[in-house]
Amino acid sequence: MWQDKLQEECGVFGVYNNNEFDTSRMVYYGLFALQHRGQESAGIAVNNNGTIVYRKEMGMVADIFDDNVLDYLNGHSGIGHVRYSTTGSSLVENAQPLVIKYTKGHMALAHNGNLTNADTLRKELEAKGTIFQTTTDSEVIAALLSRARIKYNSIEEALVEVMSIIKGAYALVIMTPHKLIAARDPFGMRPLVMGKKEDSFVFSSESCAFDALGVDLVRDVDPGEIIVISKEKGLESIQTNKKKQSAMCSFEYIYFARPDSVIESLEVYEARFRAGKVLFEEHPVEADVIVGVPDSGLGAAHGFAAASGIPLVDGFMKNRYVGRTFIAPSQGLRELAVHLKLNPIRSQINGKRVIMIDDSIVRGTTSRRIVNLLREAGATEVHVRVSSPPVKYSCYFGIDTPERENLIASTHSLDEIRDLICADSVGYISREGLLSTFKGAGCEFCTGCFTGNYPVEIVDEEAKGCQ
Amino acid sequence: MWQDKLQEECGVFGVYNNNEFDTSRMVYYGLFALQHRGQESAGIAVNNNGTIVYRKEMGMVADIFDDNVLDYLNGHSGIGHVRYSTTGSSLVENAQPLVIKYTKGHMALAHNGNLTNADTLRKELEAKGTIFQTTTDSEVIAALLSRARIKYNSIEEALVEVMSIIKGAYALVIMTPHKLIAARDPFGMRPLVMGKKEDSFVFSSESCAFDALGVDLVRDVDPGEIIVISKEKGLESIQTNKKKQSAMCSFEYIYFARPDSVIESLEVYEARFRAGKVLFEEHPVEADVIVGVPDSGLGAAHGFAAASGIPLVDGFMKNRYVGRTFIAPSQGLRELAVHLKLNPIRSQINGKRVIMIDDSIVRGTTSRRIVNLLREAGATEVHVRVSSPPVKYSCYFGIDTPERENLIASTHSLDEIRDLICADSVGYISREGLLSTFKGAGCEFCTGCFTGNYPVEIVDEEAKGCQ
Amino acid sequence: MWQDKLQEECGVFGVYNNNEFDTSRMVYYGLFALQHRGQESAGIAVNNNGTIVYRKEMGMVADIFDDNVLDYLNGHSGIGHVRYSTTGSSLVENAQPLVIKYTKGHMALAHNGNLTNADTLRKELEAKGTIFQTTTDSEVIAALLSRARIKYNSIEEALVEVMSIIKGAYALVIMTPHKLIAARDPFGMRPLVMGKKEDSFVFSSESCAFDALGVDLVRDVDPGEIIVISKEKGLESIQTNKKKQSAMCSFEYIYFARPDSVIESLEVYEARFRAGKVLFEEHPVEADVIVGVPDSGLGAAHGFAAASGIPLVDGFMKNRYVGRTFIAPSQGLRELAVHLKLNPIRSQINGKRVIMIDDSIVRGTTSRRIVNLLREAGATEVHVRVSSPPVKYSCYFGIDTPERENLIASTHSLDEIRDLICADSVGYISREGLLSTFKGAGCEFCTGCFTGNYPVEIVDEEAKGCQ
Amino acid sequence: MWQDKLQEECGVFGVYNNNEFDTSRMVYYGLFALQHRGQESAGIAVNNNGTIVYRKEMGMVADIFDDNVLDYLNGHSGIGHVRYSTTGSSLVENAQPLVIKYTKGHMALAHNGNLTNADTLRKELEAKGTIFQTTTDSEVIAALLSRARIKYNSIEEALVEVMSIIKGAYALVIMTPHKLIAARDPFGMRPLVMGKKEDSFVFSSESCAFDALGVDLVRDVDPGEIIVISKEKGLESIQTNKKKQSAMCSFEYIYFARPDSVIESLEVYEARFRAGKVLFEEHPVEADVIVGVPDSGLGAAHGFAAASGIPLVDGFMKNRYVGRTFIAPSQGLRELAVHLKLNPIRSQINGKRVIMIDDSIVRGTTSRRIVNLLREAGATEVHVRVSSPPVKYSCYFGIDTPERENLIASTHSLDEIRDLICADSVGYISREGLLSTFKGAGCEFCTGCFTGNYPVEIVDEEAKGCQ
Ligand SMILES: Nc1ncnc2c1ncn2[C@@H]1O[C@H](COP(=O)(O)OP(=O)(O)O)[C@@H](O)[C@H]1O
Ligand SMILES: Nc1ncnc2c1ncn2[C@@H]1O[C@H](COP(=O)(O)OP(=O)(O)O)[C@@H](O)[C@H]1O
Ligand SMILES: Nc1ncnc2c1ncn2[C@@H]1O[C@H](COP(=O)(O)OP(=O)(O)O)[C@@H](O)[C@H]1O
Ligand SMILES: Nc1ncnc2c1ncn2[C@@H]1O[C@H](COP(=O)(O)OP(=O)(O)O)[C@@H](O)[C@H]1O
Ligand code: SF4
Ligand code: SF4
Ligand code: SF4
Ligand code: SF4
Ligand SMILES: [Mg+2]
Ligand SMILES: [Mg+2]
Ligand SMILES: [Mg+2]
Ligand SMILES: [Mg+2]
Repeated sequence: MWQDKLQEECGVFGVYNNNEFDTSRMVYYGLFALQHRGQESAGIAVNNNGTIVYRKEMGMVADIFDDNVLDYLNGHSGIGHVRYSTTGSSLVENAQPLVIKYTKGHMALAHNGNLTNADTLRKELEAKGTIFQTTTDSEVIAALLSRARIKYNSIEEALVEVMSIIKGAYALVIMTPHKLIAARDPFGMRPLVMGKKEDSFVFSSESCAFDALGVDLVRDVDPGEIIVISKEKGLESIQTNKKKQSAMCSFEYIYFARPDSVIESLEVYEARFRAGKVLFEEHPVEADVIVGVPDSGLGAAHGFAAASGIPLVDGFMKNRYVGRTFIAPSQGLRELAVHLKLNPIRSQINGKRVIMIDDSIVRGTTSRRIVNLLREAGATEVHVRVSSPPVKYSCYFGIDTPERENLIASTHSLDEIRDLICADSVGYISREGLLSTFKGAGCEFCTGCFTGNYPVEIVDEEAKGCQ
Repeated sequence: MWQDKLQEECGVFGVYNNNEFDTSRMVYYGLFALQHRGQESAGIAVNNNGTIVYRKEMGMVADIFDDNVLDYLNGHSGIGHVRYSTTGSSLVENAQPLVIKYTKGHMALAHNGNLTNADTLRKELEAKGTIFQTTTDSEVIAALLSRARIKYNSIEEALVEVMSIIKGAYALVIMTPHKLIAARDPFGMRPLVMGKKEDSFVFSSESCAFDALGVDLVRDVDPGEIIVISKEKGLESIQTNKKKQSAMCSFEYIYFARPDSVIESLEVYEARFRAGKVLFEEHPVEADVIVGVPDSGLGAAHGFAAASGIPLVDGFMKNRYVGRTFIAPSQGLRELAVHLKLNPIRSQINGKRVIMIDDSIVRGTTSRRIVNLLREAGATEVHVRVSSPPVKYSCYFGIDTPERENLIASTHSLDEIRDLICADSVGYISREGLLSTFKGAGCEFCTGCFTGNYPVEIVDEEAKGCQ
Repeated sequence: MWQDKLQEECGVFGVYNNNEFDTSRMVYYGLFALQHRGQESAGIAVNNNGTIVYRKEMGMVADIFDDNVLDYLNGHSGIGHVRYSTTGSSLVENAQPLVIKYTKGHMALAHNGNLTNADTLRKELEAKGTIFQTTTDSEVIAALLSRARIKYNSIEEALVEVMSIIKGAYALVIMTPHKLIAARDPFGMRPLVMGKKEDSFVFSSESCAFDALGVDLVRDVDPGEIIVISKEKGLESIQTNKKKQSAMCSFEYIYFARPDSVIESLEVYEARFRAGKVLFEEHPVEADVIVGVPDSGLGAAHGFAAASGIPLVDGFMKNRYVGRTFIAPSQGLRELAVHLKLNPIRSQINGKRVIMIDDSIVRGTTSRRIVNLLREAGATEVHVRVSSPPVKYSCYFGIDTPERENLIASTHSLDEIRDLICADSVGYISREGLLSTFKGAGCEFCTGCFTGNYPVEIVDEEAKGCQ
Repeated sequence: MWQDKLQEECGVFGVYNNNEFDTSRMVYYGLFALQHRGQESAGIAVNNNGTIVYRKEMGMVADIFDDNVLDYLNGHSGIGHVRYSTTGSSLVENAQPLVIKYTKGHMALAHNGNLTNADTLRKELEAKGTIFQTTTDSEVIAALLSRARIKYNSIEEALVEVMSIIKGAYALVIMTPHKLIAARDPFGMRPLVMGKKEDSFVFSSESCAFDALGVDLVRDVDPGEIIVISKEKGLESIQTNKKKQSAMCSFEYIYFARPDSVIESLEVYEARFRAGKVLFEEHPVEADVIVGVPDSGLGAAHGFAAASGIPLVDGFMKNRYVGRTFIAPSQGLRELAVHLKLNPIRSQINGKRVIMIDDSIVRGTTSRRIVNLLREAGATEVHVRVSSPPVKYSCYFGIDTPERENLIASTHSLDEIRDLICADSVGYISREGLLSTFKGAGCEFCTGCFTGNYPVEIVDEEAKGCQ
C-alpha cells in the first residue's frame, strides 16, 4: 500500500532572469509545483555575478526554504531540483543541484533521468584519477563536462561532446557564471519545457510550474537539443544527434506528470481521459458505477464514464496527510491500515457492481487491498480496469521499478492476476490503445516496461532509479 | 485563497483498552484520521496505572510522534487531540489534552467545541481565587470539575453538575486513573461517536477514525449524555438535561467532517451528494459541464451531475503540498499564485459553459479567483452553485468565522455577490433545501450562521474559535 | 564522576525598566550570568502593558533565545529563570517563569528554593478544588496568592499572608501588570540581591549578573522582606515575620554561587580563600605541592597555599565541553573516562607529595577517582583536604542531595573514608572553622546538611530538589 | 573580546581497531578531547568492510552524535575531524572527513593544516578537468592521490608522490578499505601522534585524546613520515623527503594545544610554565600579585610566580557558557559586556599592583579591556607580560590571523602598545626566550608570525585559515 507504485524520479527547474523578478522565489514556487516528482530532498542554487550560493536539504520544498533563506539566495539566474530516491542512496550528499568549481569558475547542475552507462563512465573516469563524492549522474556529467571544456571554447561545445558519450534519459539544467543551459537526451525520454515571462527565460520538467508563475509555455526542449541563454546572445539552440524516432516515457502521461501539465503539446489529463475511453472500448463490462482510484485513476475513470454512460461515483476518501514522516503500521495492523490512506465511501459502493479504474498494477498487493476495500463496503462485483498495459519489465531511465520477479504481470497470467487481486474481471489497456491516447503529441514513445524493447542500449544493468 | 474558509476546530479521540492493543498507536492512527479537524498542534496522553504520561506539541500528528515516543506513551487507556486555533492563541501551552493533578489524582481532558459562557465562568472562578495557565475551555472545565468533585462521590456526578453550568458546544473525552469518560453538550452540537473493538471502547469526533482501526461504530454519544467506561462496571450511561431539540452543526456535513464519516447515522458524503441534487432543483441552469471545487465541492458536484444529467468533469488539479509551512506569495504575486493551490485542467473547461460548485462562500475573494481561473482556462460562462445557504452570521460554537462585516453575504445582495465574484449567475441552496439533505440523521440541526438563530444563549460575545 | 555533587537548583532574575534599556536583553544577559544555577531549562517573561509574553524551553539560555525571540519579548518589565531538576520532573511544563491569569490580570512568577510544606499545601488546595498542571512550588505559591488576593487590596498584602503559610526556602520574583515584586523567606536561606542602573531596579539570585550589566549592587533583599517596585510609588519595602536568626545556605559560599558574586556583603571567593587558610590551620600536612580540583576547589587551594607556603600548581586540565548532551561512557569505559572531564598535568604532579583540595565529598566516588588520577600521574602521596564539613544529612531547601545512605560521611568513619577514596590522609574543615570564613557577612547560616539541625520545620519529607 | 585570538584550525583522529573496541565511540571520545581545535563542524567516518559510512555536521561533537548515530557508525577502522573555519567557508560541504569513491573503492580523509600551494594545484587540476565541490585542501589532496594511484601499486606510493607536490603544513589521516594511513608534512608543522591500545593503533592531533581512552602514547609521527596500518603487515613506516630542520608551530605550545598534551616529547604545560619563568627573567617588575588571564595565561602565570616569589591570585571568573550560540551584545552594550565572559574577583585585585599575564596580544582590543577590568576592580598598577613574542606577521599554515594592519605589534612600537592597552608597562618574551622554553622537544620550530621567516615557500598568498 505504502510504496506499491513505480516511483517518480526528479524534477528540474531553471530561470534566467532578465527582468526584476525575484529569482529565488520563482524557483521556489516552481519547485513547489514540481514537488510530486520528488519528495526526498530539494535544492536551489542561484548565480550572483559568478558566485553560486545554494541550499539543499533532505525534506520537502516548503519545509526547507523560508523567507530568510530565499532572501539570501539572491541572484540573476537560478536552478532548482526535487529528488526522490531509493533508500540506499538517501544521503544529503546526493541532493541536487550539484554545485562545483571547475576551470571556468562555478557551475550548478540539476538532472532528471538516468544514464544507462553511468557505471562504465565512472569507472573510466576513476581509472583516469577522478574522485566521486556522490552517487548521482550529475556528478558524472559534471566530471565529463569539465574535462571536455578544456578542449573546447565554450561550455555548450563541451556539452555536445558529453552528450555523444552519455547514454540514457536526461533532462538537464545547467547554470554557469554567464549562461543558463537546458538539454534533453536524444530520445527525449524525460520532459523539459521552456517558457517565457516578459524578457526572462524559464525551464521546467513540467508546464504546471509555469501556470503557477504566469510564465507562458513556449515549447518543449527538443530531443537532443541544447538551449543556451546568455545576456549577450539571448537564446541559442544547438541540435545534437537527434534520433529518427523519439521515445518520451509513456508513464509520464499515465501516472507521473501532473494532469494539468502539457507535455509535447498534449495535456496529460487529456491523455488519461482518452485512456478511459479506450479501456471501455477494449474491455467493456456491465456495472452500476465506476470508481477511480484517487488520484491517479480519476482521469481514466472520467473517460470510461463518458464513453460507457455508467455513472462515475466518488468511491474513496484519500487521506491527504499520508507523507514521509508518517509511521506506517507494523505487520500486525498493516492489512487493516489500508483504510488510513484510502477509505471507501459506503453510500456510493454498497450493493453496487463496481468498475474500479487505476493507472497501473505493479506488485498487485495494493490492487488486492483496494478491491477488498470495495467488497467490504458492499460492492457485489469488482471489475478492475487498468489504464496502462501490464508492467512486465524494469525501467532503466529514471523510474524506480521493483525487481522483475516482483512485477505481478511478469510472472502471472491475466487470470491469475484477476484471482490474486480478488477481482471479478480485469482488463488492461493494450499497447496500441495506449499509444492512440497520445494522438497529437509531437513525439514518439517509450513502452519499454511493457514490452522489454528499450529505445537505448542498457549498458549498466543495475542502475535504475533516478540518479 | 489561503484562509478564506470557515476554520475547523478540533478533534478528540479516546481508547479504553481492555485487550492487548497498542494504546498509543491506536490513538496515533485515530488522530491521524482526524487530522483535518486541526493541524496546529496535537497531543496524546496515556494512563499507565494512574500515572499520566503525555506529549503535546505544535505541528502535525505525523511530525510530532515517532516510534520512540509512541513506545514511551505506554498505557491501558489513552486520549488524544488535534487542534486548530486562531493566530492569537497559537501557544504550545494551549495544546491539548490538558493534564492536571487534582484531589483524586491525575486527569486528562480533550475538548472540541466552544463554551459560550467561558469568560463569565473564568471570571467567577478567578474571583474565587482560581488561576489559569491557558486560554482553553478545557481548563475551565477542569477547574469546575475539580471543585465539583469535592461535593460528589464520583467524577461523573461532578460532571453532571459541571454540564449544568457550562453552556455552548462541546464534545469531551476525559481520562482519570480508572475511567474513560465521553460527554456531549445538551444540544449535541459537535459530533462524538463510540465504537468497540473486541472488549475495548473507543471514542472519536468522527467515525472515519474507526475505519482506520477496525473499530466497529456502535452509536453516537447522545446530546447531554455522559458515558463512563471502567474496569469494574464496563460501560455506564448517564443522561443529563437533554434538550427537546438537538442542534448538530450543519456545517459538519457541509464542509468540516470527512466525507466517509457517519454522523448521527448519516454518511457525510451522502448529505453532500443530496445537496447537489437539491441545488439543481432549486437553481437549474443550462451548461456544458459541471466542475466541483476540490475537495469540498466534489460531493455536491456529483449530486448535481446525477440530477441534471450534465457531465461532471475534473476542472482542477489541487496541489496536495500546500500546508502550514508553505510561504504564501506576497502581495505582488498573490493574484497569480492562486494557481499554486488550484490549477485548471484546460481541456475540460475550454469553450464550455461551466457550473462551478463549492460548499460555501465566506468572504468571496476565493470564489472570485476560482471563477477567474475558469474564465482564463476558456470557460464561456460560469454559474456558481453553493451547497450551503448564505453565511451571514458568526458562529459561537467552535468554528472560526470572520467578523460579520467580512462575510460577503452579510453585506451584499445576491446580485452584488454575483458581480463581485464575476459569475454569470449564483445560486445558494435554501435552508429548507439544506435540511432536507439531512434526512435520516438522528438529530436536529443548528443553522445559526445562516439565520442568526442560535440554539444556545450566547453569554460571552467575543469567544468564537475552538478553545 | 558525572553527577557526584550536590546539585544546584535555580536562579531568578527581574528588571523593572524605568529607562530606555532593552528589557529582554537585560534578562537574557542576567540569566546567562546565572546559568551555573540551572542548565536544564530557562525562560523569560516580559510585561508589555499588562500583557505577558514569554518563552520557556528545555536547554541552555544561549540555545533557547536568539535575536528574533528577544525582539519579540518586548516590555517594560521582565523576569527570568534558569532551572535544574532531578530527572523525574524534567518536563517543559515545569519550566519557569510560571505565567498565569488570575482575577487581577496576568502574573508571572519565578522561584528558587524549596517549600517544605508544599505537598501539604497542595493537598489542602486540591481538597478545595484547585487543579495543578505542574509539580513546581511556583504553582502552589500562585494558587495561594490568587486566593489571598481576593481578601486583600493589593498583591503585596496577599503575599504577606502567603508568606505566613508557606515554609521553607524561597527567593521569589513576581511580575504583575503594574509591579515587580521580590521576596525572600524569613530565614533568608536563598540569596537574592537588588541592584540599580540609573532609574531602573534589578533583582538577581547573585550579584555576578549585575557586573555583566553595569548594574550597581544596592543591597540584599532581607530575610522575610517583600520589595515592591511600581511606577507610582517607586520602591516600597514590607518586612514580614523576620526570624531572630537568619540561615543563609552555607553551601552557596562553599560551592554553588559564583566566586565573583557578593552575597550578604561577602564575596564568595573571599570566603573560599579563607576556608583554605582555616583548612591548613586545622589539618596541616607536609607536602610538595597543592592541587585544587577545578573549578570548585581552586579558591580554597589558593588560601591553603597562602597560609602554608606550599606552592599551588595546576594539577588538572578540565575539559570545558562536558555538558548536558555529552554521552557519558557506558560502564565498560567509565573508570577510564574520568580523564575525559579531568586530565592530570603530569609535570606538576609526578614525583610529588600532593595536597588535593576540593569543596566537598558527597558519595566519595569522584574523590576516589581524582585521587587515583593523581597517583597515576606520579603523585607519591595524596592528602585530601575538604573545604566543607562532612555532608551527612539531606537538604530540604532546594538542593538536590542523594539519599542519606549514599552520603559517604553519613555511613563511614573518617578513617574509612580515607581508605575508600585511596588517600593518604583526609581532613575536613570543622563547622566552626567554616562559620569563621563567613565573617563580615550580614547574616547567620544554615549548616543542616552537616548537622541535621535545620532552621525550618520539615513538613513534607520527600520534597528536596529545586521546585 | 569575542574573537581577538589567533584561531585554531582543526583536529584529526583515527583508529585501526584490531581488538573488540567500539570504533565509533573511540573516535567520538577522541574528538571530544580535541574539541578545542575546532568547534564549527565535526565528522566521523568508519570503514565497515570496505563500505564507508559517515556523519558530518555543523556544530559541536556532543551535539552531533548520539547513541543511535554511534551505533550506526559501526566499523573496524574509523577517522574523525573537528573543524574551525573563517566565516566565508562555513559550509557543511566543507565539513570533514571527506569521503570519496575512486578507482580502488572508497576513501576518507581528514586534514589539519594548510597547503600553501593549494590554489595553484587546484588551478592545475582544474585545467586538466577536475571539478571541486568544496574549498578544502582535503579535496585537493584526494584528487592528487587518486590520480597518482593510477601510476603506482599502492596508496602509500601514491601518497609519497603527492607529498612531493603539496607544500605547507599538514597532519593527515586517511582511511581506505584495508588501511589506515597517517602522514605529516616534511617540516612537521602540525602535531600528530601515534598511540597503541592492546593491538589497535590510534592517531591523534594531540595526546590528550589518548589519556581519555587509555591509549598509550607511542611517539610522534615524524616530519615527512607516512605510517600505514594494515591487517596483513601491521605497521609500516615510509620516510619521505625529511627536511634538515623541522618547524613545529610554536603557537601550539603557546596557545593552541591542550596543556595536558605532550607534543614531540614535551608537555605543553611545562613549556608554558617555563615561559613564565623566562618572562620574569626578561621583564621583572615589582608588584603585589600576579594574575593569569584564564585559561591561556595561567600556565605562564604559575611560572612567573614560581620564579618571582610574587603570589599568584585568582583574578578572574571566566564564564564557562560563552560559546557559539551566545548572542554577543551589540555595540551599545559591548564595552560593558566584557564582564559576561571575564569578571574580576575584587578581593584579589583591589588595592594591588598587578602583573597580568596572557599568552599573546593580537589586535590589542581584548588586552585593553582586561587591563581596564583590573583597574575598575581596584588595581593600582597593571603590568602586562606576554608569553609570546610580538605577533607581527600572518600565518600561512593553518592558523587564522588577522590582516597585518590589524596586528597591533605590526604597526605600533612597544610604548604605543603599552599606552593603547592602558598598561603601566608591557613586556613580551623574546624569540630566544621562547625557544628556550622548548628545551627537550624533539624538533625545531616555526616562528614565522613573529619574524616573517617561514620554513616553507608561500606560493599562494591568500590562503591562510585551516582548510
Ligand atoms: N484527510 C482528508 N483527505 C481528503 N479530504 C479531506 C480530508 N479531510 C477532510 N477532507 C475534506 O476536505 C474538504 C476541505 O478540503 P478543500 O476544499 O480541498 O480545502 P479548503 O479548506 O481549501 O476548502 C472538507 O470538505 C473535508 O470534508
Ligand atoms: N500536487 C499534486 N496534487 C494532486 N495530484 C497530483 C499532484 N502531483 C501529482 N499528482 C497526480 O497524483 C497522482 C498520484 O497520486 P495518487 O494516485 O493519489 O498516489 P499514489 O502514488 O499512491 O498512486 C499522479 O497521477 C499525479 O499525476
Ligand atoms: N577543553 C579544554 N578545557 C580547558 N582549556 C582548554 C581546553 N582546550 C584547550 N584549552 C586551553 O584553553 C586555552 C584557550 O582558552 P582561553 O584563554 O580561556 O580562551 P580564549 O580563546 O578566549 O583565549 C588554550 O590555551 C588551550 O590550551
Ligand atoms: N560560569 C562559571 N564559570 C566558571 N565557574 C563557575 C561558573 N559558574 C559557577 N562556577 C563555579 O564552578 C564551580 C563548579 O564547577 P566544577 O567544580 O568545575 O564542577 P563540578 O560541578 O563538577 O564540581 C562552582 O564552585 C561555581 O562557583
Ligand atoms: S521503460 Fe517505462 S517507465 Fe521507463 S521510460 Fe520507458 S515507458 Fe517510461
Ligand atoms: S452557527 Fe453554523 S458553524 Fe456554528 S454550529 Fe451552527 S451551523 Fe455550525
Ligand atoms: S541543608 Fe545544607 S545545602 Fe541545604 S540549605 Fe542548609 S546548608 Fe544549604
Ligand atoms: S607562523 Fe606562527 S602560527 Fe603559523 S605555524 Fe608558524 S609559529 Fe605557528
Ligand atoms: Mg494512485
Ligand atoms: Mg474547499
Ligand atoms: Mg567541582
Ligand atoms: Mg586566552
